[in-house]
Amino acid sequence: MSAKKSAEVVIGGKLYTLSGYEEEEYLQRVAGYINNKIAEFNEVEGFKRLTPDMKSTLIELNIADDFFKAKGQVEKYESDMEQKEKEIYDLKHDLISDQVRFDALQETIDSLEQEKKELLHTKEKLEASLQDALLGSLDADVL
Amino acid sequence: MSAKKSAEVVIGGKLYTLSGYEEEEYLQRVAGYINNKIAEFNEVEGFKRLTPDMKSTLIELNIADDFFKAKGQVEKYESDMEQKEKEIYDLKHDLISDQVRFDALQETIDSLEQEKKELLHTKEKLEASLQDALLGSLDADVL
Repeated sequence: MSAKKSAEVVIGGKLYTLSGYEEEEYLQRVAGYINNKIAEFNEVEGFKRLTPDMKSTLIELNIADDFFKAKGQVEKYESDMEQKEKEIYDLKHDLISDQVRFDALQETIDSLEQEKKELLHTKEKLEASLQDALLGSLDADVL
Repeated sequence: MSAKKSAEVVIGGKLYTLSGYEEEEYLQRVAGYINNKIAEFNEVEGFKRLTPDMKSTLIELNIADDFFKAKGQVEKYESDMEQKEKEIYDLKHDLISDQVRFDALQETIDSLEQEKKELLHTKEKLEASLQDALLGSLDADVL
């Protein structure tokens, strides 16, 4: 774990020294985000007239709303991710089944090739025997 | 878009009437979350002695930190999701290639089956002709 750091940030025009394990760059980003919220609210008609309590509560609500919206996205992604992983698992499973099917088809091809070879051999032998037989009968006729 | 609603929530012991498009149940959840933050801070040594300004700024920073952490998760999920989708695309592509390969193998099997059938037929015919030829030569010898 990294060492404790401290950083000075300006929020709502006031300087705060924050210490913690976060990088200063991160703390500045968070402070900038809060300052933007404050600036947005100051644009809103009537905000300036609210009590400091109400102002900070509205800002807290607004930031908390951003958080809940992001949290909602995270939860949605979590379930989407589960689905995607299941889909990937199933697709990989299908590819494995394909491999098994390929092997079976290849075996069929191999044995058909072998049968063909044997049949061609038998055919040649039969053709040769037939030729001999025909010649034999010719000789016989000549006698 | 649903109609504007209003809900009364208690934050930091004060009653606020919030109006907007959010459901009351959601606003109560957000208020409850902020109240838990306040309660957690009140447990922290010395928090009570801070000025109201500092208190609310610390709470805002803490909520904003939750938001940035959730936002970080969302960004991570976005890139993970892209990867998963690419992986799914590739796997589906492989399954399509397999199908093409299956068709080719099936064609090979069909033509081998056909050749085998023709060879068997030729073999039968040759066997028959050979038998006739042998009988023929036998007759010849008998003369």
